[in-house]
Order: sequence, then structure tokens, then C-alpha cells
Amino acid sequence: MTEKIEHIGIAVADLDRATELYTRLLGIPPYKTERVESEGVEVAFFRVGQSKIELLAPLHEASPIAKFLAKRGEGIHHVAFGVSDIRAELQRLKAEGFELLNENPKPGADRKWVAFVHPKSAGGVLVELCQDREKDDDHGG
Amino acid sequence: MTEKIEHIGIAVADLDRATELYTRLLGIPPYKTERVESEGVEVAFFRVGQSKIELLAPLHEASPIAKFLAKRGEGIHHVAFGVSDIRAELQRLKAEGFELLNENPKPGADRKWVAFVHPKSAGGVLVELCQDREKDDDHGG
Repeated sequence: MTEKIEHIGIAVADLDRATELYTRLLGIPPYKTERVESEGVEVAFFRVGQSKIELLAPLHEASPIAKFLAKRGEGIHHVAFGVSDIRAELQRLKAEGFELLNENPKPGADRKWVAFVHPKSAGGVLVELCQDREKDDDHGG
Repeated sequence: MTEKIEHIGIAVADLDRATELYTRLLGIPPYKTERVESEGVEVAFFRVGQSKIELLAPLHEASPIAKFLAKRGEGIHHVAFGVSDIRAELQRLKAEGFELLNENPKPGADRKWVAFVHPKSAGGVLVELCQDREKDDDHGG
């Protein structure tokens, strides 16, 4: 079961420009920026209650975010739900008939284990699951 | 300043079918369904931590959700931030240069005062502000 909205991912073309815009929109600055080479993105995180806003800008043209921007333009890219046992939740969703983009959790930004559900099986929404990654935890819970 | 992600609004074609899907995805049933005639939608709400998932289905072809579905298909429609003083927040955003779709709060679903920010001024994201509506409160705080 999902415990919270962990974050909303928003695709942006230029991270500096978008960070300035969302700082004015939310009334707070980002608490962290990070490069995630494996996903081809640089990201900025804003804290909003128990959730975050994650801005994602492409590092290069092969980034999934570059493809999203070319097709749809800037806007909401995905929603991430926080779970306490990501492997159990992936098994539950698979048994419910959801198509997983990741059968196993992989390391994600901001010290998380993450996995995605295909939007075709989730009503057009790209759904991410997130679990906190502990120090020395290298196997995804 | 925004206090939490109040909800994520997701446009769906068929509320019953989508409610079944999201009940399986989230692992919980909706806590409420509601018709909002003024917006031309029927909605279902799921509780996720301090936030909600709001499914929005059109009641007729003139509904903004019908137009969204025709253009983009099912998917995330807007993000709503919870604030304690919606009028003060609207003034702050206007002073920051954001284009407001509602200069004054209007009654929204699930006992809220709501107002929207134009996505053109907010990086392609349709942003809603929400404030709890008290009993006998008819002027938006």
C-alpha cells in the first residue's frame, strides 16, 4: 500500500530557469540539486509537506526527459508513491496485472530505491514507487 | 507558502472503470465520490498520506476534462497545493508575475476554496490552490 505521495516529477527544459520559477511559485528554494547520470537528468528538489517537487532537466538528447519534452513540452512527468517495502509492492502490483517497467528496484535520486509502472497499465500515468535507501543497502530492501 | 500537496487531479474517461483501476493500484478504495456540476465533472477521492488522488471524469462534452481527454488522453491534469490563506497566496503569486485563472477563490470539491494558476505562467503545469472551507464560510477566507 502507498503511504504518501513521495514526489511529483516535472519535466523542464532548463533547470536554472525552472528552479527560479518554482522558487517563486512555492515560496521556498530547493533543498538539493543532483545529477543522475544513469537517467540522463539533473534534478532539483523542493520540500512540500511530506512530499517533494522534483524538477527534471535532460543532460543530453538521449535522456527520456528530452524525449518527453520534444513530444509534450514542459509539464508533469510522473507521480511517485512512497512505500515501506518496494519489493512486496512490486509483487502485489504484478499480481494485480500492472505492467512493470522495472521488475527489480534500482537506485534513484535522493537516496531512494525506485521502480516504475508502465503508464499504459496505469491509466496514462507514469507511476514510480520509492523506498528509502539505507546506508550500505545495495540490494533494494 | 504551500503547506502540502493537497491532491493530484487525474483526468479519466470512465469514473467507474478508473476507480476500479486506482483501487488496485493504490491498494485502497476511494473515501468519497462527488458531482461538481459547476465544473462539469464527477470525481472520486483516494487518501494517500496527507494528500489525495482525485479522479476527474467529464459529465458532458463541454467539461474542461472532456476537452483535456480529447487533446491529451487520460493522465495527470493538475496539481493542487494546500494553503492556509488562499487570498494572501493569490496576491503573493500575482505580485510574483503569475497569471491567475481565478482572481478570487471559488467553492471546489471536497469542501475547499480553490483557485487556479495558468499553466503558461507555471512551466506547463496547471496549479490549483486549496484552502479548507469552514461551515458557513461563503466568502473564501
